[in-house]
Amino acid sequence: MLNPTHPNPDDRYARGQRALAEIDGAAGQAVIDSLADIAPDFARYLFEFPFGDIYSRPGLDLRSREIATIAALAALGHAVPQLKVHIRAGLNVGLTQTEIVEILMQMAVYAGFPAALNGLFAAREVFADKPS
Amino acid sequence: MLNPTHPNPDDRYARGQRALAEIDGAAGQAVIDSLADIAPDFARYLFEFPFGDIYSRPGLDLRSREIATIAALAALGHAVPQLKVHIRAGLNVGLTQTEIVEILMQMAVYAGFPAALNGLFAAREVFADKPS
Amino acid sequence: MLNPTHPNPDDRYARGQRALAEIDGAAGQAVIDSLADIAPDFARYLFEFPFGDIYSRPGLDLRSREIATIAALAALGHAVPQLKVHIRAGLNVGLTQTEIVEILMQMAVYAGFPAALNGLFAAREVFADKPS
Amino acid sequence: MLNPTHPNPDDRYARGQRALAEIDGAAGQAVIDSLADIAPDFARYLFEFPFGDIYSRPGLDLRSREIATIAALAALGHAVPQLKVHIRAGLNVGLTQTEIVEILMQMAVYAGFPAALNGLFAAREVFADKPS
Amino acid sequence: MLNPTHPNPDDRYARGQRALAEIDGAAGQAVIDSLADIAPDFARYLFEFPFGDIYSRPGLDLRSREIATIAALAALGHAVPQLKVHIRAGLNVGLTQTEIVEILMQMAVYAGFPAALNGLFAAREVFADKPS
Amino acid sequence: MLNPTHPNPDDRYARGQRALAEIDGAAGQAVIDSLADIAPDFARYLFEFPFGDIYSRPGLDLRSREIATIAALAALGHAVPQLKVHIRAGLNVGLTQTEIVEILMQMAVYAGFPAALNGLFAAREVFADKPS
Repeated sequence: MLNPTHPNPDDRYARGQRALAEIDGAAGQAVIDSLADIAPDFARYLFEFPFGDIYSRPGLDLRSREIATIAALAALGHAVPQLKVHIRAGLNVGLTQTEIVEILMQMAVYAGFPAALNGLFAAREVFADKPS
Repeated sequence: MLNPTHPNPDDRYARGQRALAEIDGAAGQAVIDSLADIAPDFARYLFEFPFGDIYSRPGLDLRSREIATIAALAALGHAVPQLKVHIRAGLNVGLTQTEIVEILMQMAVYAGFPAALNGLFAAREVFADKPS
Repeated sequence: MLNPTHPNPDDRYARGQRALAEIDGAAGQAVIDSLADIAPDFARYLFEFPFGDIYSRPGLDLRSREIATIAALAALGHAVPQLKVHIRAGLNVGLTQTEIVEILMQMAVYAGFPAALNGLFAAREVFADKPS
Repeated sequence: MLNPTHPNPDDRYARGQRALAEIDGAAGQAVIDSLADIAPDFARYLFEFPFGDIYSRPGLDLRSREIATIAALAALGHAVPQLKVHIRAGLNVGLTQTEIVEILMQMAVYAGFPAALNGLFAAREVFADKPS
Repeated sequence: MLNPTHPNPDDRYARGQRALAEIDGAAGQAVIDSLADIAPDFARYLFEFPFGDIYSRPGLDLRSREIATIAALAALGHAVPQLKVHIRAGLNVGLTQTEIVEILMQMAVYAGFPAALNGLFAAREVFADKPS
Repeated sequence: MLNPTHPNPDDRYARGQRALAEIDGAAGQAVIDSLADIAPDFARYLFEFPFGDIYSRPGLDLRSREIATIAALAALGHAVPQLKVHIRAGLNVGLTQTEIVEILMQMAVYAGFPAALNGLFAAREVFADKPS
């Protein structure tokens, strides 16, 4: 349970920056840059809610959080850029390439073989950029 | 990596039965019973492929597999009965109620607040049946 | 290819009524009744476009059309009432229970086992109401 | 554009409460109550991000925000409870029953007739509870 | 409510052409051209049902219709080309760039941050082609 | 119903190879090649379950199976590469270009016009490569 006194908002932003830096700093900066001219507030929300609020919570470790995110994005199927970011993030927080491949293969059971295949092809691209 | 010699098919079925029994024996039997009169072969496939092939692979522990499954089913949103089975399975393989709640809340980021809310309501029903 | 001269609109409505009556007359009337007080024009569109325009086209037989519809609705997963209507319609236009079960099992490959399972449970309900 | 100085966090919560109260106070309280025993922090997030951050932004009026939400929830198809909340919210912020019906019928074009039909049936239930 | 006497079918086609021309004439012609060699009848249906029947109805203004469409397409996530057409259409019928950005950011709440991000990136491309 | 004695596993693999060769041999080899360096076991599962188990079942002919698959993949919308493979497969097992176009147009009714349009554009690419 979070501290019942609400966190200082600057803390949320800074905490989100730290969490995203720990997961994948380059991707975080890329998203900020890409939103700067169209929706700068959305970059702030992205730091604050997903990373400052959710990923920073103590109840689940970052490795487990990335398992959940990789699985969800592969299952949804329409978010390949974000899936690649989180495959890289998974490697950064300690998942092995083998574990990521297992997660993606398992999605064949819940979201079908095409979702699993497209997830595996995304992983192949990420792994080629960043060998384990 | 699985043994390159293909497993004996009776092994796949038996191995799937063992895996599903370890995860949630009662749910496994309920699915078999529910399919008996309409698609008995599908009950066999369900043992063989998801549980005999995938969940039995050595590359990812069952706790991590259930994190992935709970996340995917909550994100997809149309599979509430299966989500409940895997929330119970998650508890059986060592996830705490707190960890499951964290996974489901995190789905607000990737699949929206309604998917997270409906996942949390499913968890509340499962937790009420089976207190940790 | 349809006649390049546009059909008379009353023809579209009447043709849609005939097509839906051929597929499942009771379901058609039930939908009209259910829309009468909230969106009566939508009942008209439902006759005109899906059934008057699409199902009445000569390029694909009704049995094949119902295979496509059952597959799509089971894969999408959020349209169980409509899936039941079209499982019944499939029986009406010549699909056997076995064929419908095969279509639904096959959806495990493309949309995951939960979508297939929920489709099979819908079929079991329809088959119980209307034995082949 | 929001004030570049970050808002006080208690302001976010209070602002979210006010926004949700303006849209649908009873639904807001029902969600808080339903989350109290399983994920109380999620109730807080729900006030803070969707309502305190997003709905409170000046760039789009509440009527337009509810059009967007009703359309999205009907198109997604797996969030009927939330769709009902926002159909009621739409009435509260000035949409007429006719306008809501038009939005839902239009979803037939983008998400298919079943999504539109299920949205219309949800609207019929809400309208029956709360005549305009 | 439409005139209870069914409209003349040539009227539907012409009315759809006028509605699409008002919304985005270039996009309409591009779709016709792209369908000419594979499914010319589908181009006709596209004029007749979405634009001749739905968008031409008097119960909801075009600005509101485009809000609903932009929200739905961003939430569904698999229809980026059509989302771009309707972001441009939204500008044509009076939505500001700011309002469109607000609609897309709001989709983070209902369909997740990836759907919102991909919608914002689509908007950035459209806005770059057509400055407001 | 399959033989109640479980098939020899090497039979499943070989039978899947034969089924996929009958449907689209080049696509099968391309998928194997693309998975060789990242998830070779997944190539094996792909032969064994979808093609060795499901497509090889006697209860539904291959033409009908491809109708179901084309419809499901077009409706899901996030699996364009796999949709193209199965449009080609549909031609290989006896569907005409006209029939495939009819299936895809029909998806406008169940999954919306964008899903149908994107399916038709995929078909146009396949037909251009392989004239009927």
